[in-house]
Amino acid sequence: MIDLRSVSCLLLLSALITASGLAQKPRPRADSEYERPPAPSPPPLPASLLQELAAIRNAALTDDYAYRQVAHLTENIGPRPAGSPQAQAAIEYVAAEMRKLGLEVRLEPVQARHWIRRAESAELVEYPGQVQGTTQKIVLTALGGNYPTPAEGITAEVIVANSFADLDRLGRQNVAGKIVLFNMAFDQQKAVNGYAGEAYNEAVVYRATGAKRAAELGAVASLVRSVGGVEYRLPHTGGSKAADIPAGAVTSEDADLIVHLASQGKVRMHAILTSQTAEEVRTFNVVGDLKGSEHPEQVVIVSGHLDSWDLGTGALDDAAGVAVAMETAQLMQQRHLRPKRTLRVIAWIDEENLGRGHAEYAKAHAAEISQHVAAIESDLGASHPMGFRAKISREAVARLQPVLDVLQPIGANLILLSSDSPEADIEPLAKQGVPAFGLLQDGRTYFNYHHTAADTLDKIVPQELRENATAMAVMGYALAAMPDPLPR
Amino acid sequence: MIDLRSVSCLLLLSALITASGLAQKPRPRADSEYERPPAPSPPPLPASLLQELAAIRNAALTDDYAYRQVAHLTENIGPRPAGSPQAQAAIEYVAAEMRKLGLEVRLEPVQARHWIRRAESAELVEYPGQVQGTTQKIVLTALGGNYPTPAEGITAEVIVANSFADLDRLGRQNVAGKIVLFNMAFDQQKAVNGYAGEAYNEAVVYRATGAKRAAELGAVASLVRSVGGVEYRLPHTGGSKAADIPAGAVTSEDADLIVHLASQGKVRMHAILTSQTAEEVRTFNVVGDLKGSEHPEQVVIVSGHLDSWDLGTGALDDAAGVAVAMETAQLMQQRHLRPKRTLRVIAWIDEENLGRGHAEYAKAHAAEISQHVAAIESDLGASHPMGFRAKISREAVARLQPVLDVLQPIGANLILLSSDSPEADIEPLAKQGVPAFGLLQDGRTYFNYHHTAADTLDKIVPQELRENATAMAVMGYALAAMPDPLPR
Repeated sequence: MIDLRSVSCLLLLSALITASGLAQKPRPRADSEYERPPAPSPPPLPASLLQELAAIRNAALTDDYAYRQVAHLTENIGPRPAGSPQAQAAIEYVAAEMRKLGLEVRLEPVQARHWIRRAESAELVEYPGQVQGTTQKIVLTALGGNYPTPAEGITAEVIVANSFADLDRLGRQNVAGKIVLFNMAFDQQKAVNGYAGEAYNEAVVYRATGAKRAAELGAVASLVRSVGGVEYRLPHTGGSKAADIPAGAVTSEDADLIVHLASQGKVRMHAILTSQTAEEVRTFNVVGDLKGSEHPEQVVIVSGHLDSWDLGTGALDDAAGVAVAMETAQLMQQRHLRPKRTLRVIAWIDEENLGRGHAEYAKAHAAEISQHVAAIESDLGASHPMGFRAKISREAVARLQPVLDVLQPIGANLILLSSDSPEADIEPLAKQGVPAFGLLQDGRTYFNYHHTAADTLDKIVPQELRENATAMAVMGYALAAMPDPLPR
Repeated sequence: MIDLRSVSCLLLLSALITASGLAQKPRPRADSEYERPPAPSPPPLPASLLQELAAIRNAALTDDYAYRQVAHLTENIGPRPAGSPQAQAAIEYVAAEMRKLGLEVRLEPVQARHWIRRAESAELVEYPGQVQGTTQKIVLTALGGNYPTPAEGITAEVIVANSFADLDRLGRQNVAGKIVLFNMAFDQQKAVNGYAGEAYNEAVVYRATGAKRAAELGAVASLVRSVGGVEYRLPHTGGSKAADIPAGAVTSEDADLIVHLASQGKVRMHAILTSQTAEEVRTFNVVGDLKGSEHPEQVVIVSGHLDSWDLGTGALDDAAGVAVAMETAQLMQQRHLRPKRTLRVIAWIDEENLGRGHAEYAKAHAAEISQHVAAIESDLGASHPMGFRAKISREAVARLQPVLDVLQPIGANLILLSSDSPEADIEPLAKQGVPAFGLLQDGRTYFNYHHTAADTLDKIVPQELRENATAMAVMGYALAAMPDPLPR
């Protein structure tokens, strides 16, 4: 998942920070440019470091390590909801793989709730034009944290709300006792135009908080139109804030059907959405250190999250992120590169549900946060990386320009400044001032697959995954090896 | 469904018959052109007829009649498997709508088998790297005519065959007692390049006859990789020749998973594919005549099929075809046009299963086949029509050139000659020499949705459906109103 609050930063595209390069390469000023003082020239990076970065880049572009990790995690292990046996197997597998790489590995305990999907089905049992003795099937899935229906399901009239304002206008007198369908469509055009995260955020607020809002007005269940970019009758699951009514997502096709029929007359639905929240289980973040040669106490994190939703096998979200972080260490070990700071590979747990993995890390490492030099996470799939979204200073951007230049040949040299944390798992660190980077993948197709049964290995394009490993490894190594820590 | 045997004709694209136009509009011969005798000039069509055709075209391009029919059939009635209550409701609905148009309507009886899908689920219960106590879910669907598993399912090793030759090579000693997975991929590149039907045919033979072949070698079940062009974890159903073993289709993602794991070691699957073939039921072709003013005994058929698969609501396959055929009559009645021959609108039944609808029509009307001047069916979706695939003579093509010219402004003026029937329901007529036309839609996306749960109303682009109605109506009226019957 991407962080829900940090997406407005995408609008900053036009404010791209390559401006910092202007100081180094003055050019005639166009009339339309506004005055700004030239940025101070940052100290150059050592030539030996730049050579190492280029060598890492070249090695990563032909390496299949990350792909093999994604294949094992998704096909041999499978879906990895936090607290599940598969998540535990993945934790042990990743820890063992990190040890093979020669990292110092710790399993850092996290308490998680294991949410388990059970039966989910629905049909319209009354609607205009209904053929006697028949129903219309509705394809839906339960949202994470769903409050279950009884085993036999519930039956109620459906009322459509196109927004929260619409819900408020309907009021308790129209909503109480009914199933609310929030019919907010994902703006695929916006996604294709490069604002996938923004399109996601506009719609996902209904998935995240719709059930809570509907319950406040007496609804008996809450459904959202699936938040995604294509229409192949695929429901998209995802987290929902705890409400005491069942919460699900119907496909866009089924949302259309309900909306059309409800505009013609009364629509009643029978829905079964059972699920179980198992007791709290002990699970783990996997933390692997490649100790720094000069400043082992200074830490650079490279990371992805190991847990996934249960419908697909979590290839894009986010086995790919874990795999490219692991490959960062693998490339260094393979080339016998030992940076002066500690490179810390983290496979986070519980990103999709309660975020307990990163919360627990921030708590357990509270005393050392000031020694965290930077943190990178990849959690926007595995398409071509354009560069990074980053919550860093302009001075830091200038310092990184030579590193971005190394990534220029693969078109991964963009820095898009963000005022919020670029990804969820590094947010506690970003909030405390740790320079935070998210890999900025081409997100145009990400939300087609995100949180669906179709998030599977075949969606990973091997060469694009290599590009992601390249971006993570070059930036990760640079941050760990550059002469001075990145300025905050 | 498109006719399985008539697709090689798509390769005739390069032999397009527009050559016949050369006789009317001589142009300098390029060096590369080979000698051919000029085609005889066909008799021109009356100016009044050409004016009527242009008026029909212009009216159809702004008419929503067909869309409203598709919406009712798919959203108010729903899926329409032959013999189902929904199919019966659709028959009665279409008959009533035809009567509203002033047609003489008959329900012509057809005996059909009502095949009913029941439980379908599967999981891998043994595979390399398996996490203890877990399985991997496999998404699949039963094929039409499936021989059911017991309610508790079957469990067996899976063996992969990439072709029939591969199956034969494996032989009984490797196949007996196992579940065969036919892993023939749909060639999406070929489909996008304009040979959608050919890509379909290459793969669909495994769906149609795989179970029979596997059963002959002692397999306990047969699965095919879904025949379709996109990968959104969607299984594609379809007809399968009767075999005494269960037959299903897994999604392309699940086929990949099985193939990958089977290459690493033993894979065992538990599968439940129950279904029921109800006793034979009496159902109907809906036949509506707009009687000819001069030669009522001469018949021009415009048609689509009313039955659909059960997973989606059969919007593309083939409510759209029925709707544009109905609109052909509606446009004539609206404009008070009464052609000299009878225009016969047919909503065929049972196209998807045993083809009993068109077989029964051919039998019941055997004595009048020679009076059938032409037959048109639309059964390749509702995307932009490029023109027609047709099993007609070159002389007939020349005669139709002025009609094609009327369709030129919407780019529907192509005639692609076919040596087989262009569509399944008009095949018995085509075989007896009746000039047969299929609407030739842009098929690049058709097999993304075909026979899946995603074949729903939203896949119909209203303006493209209008273009299909335009093509059907202009050609249908021309064939019924031109001075002489189209030469055979």
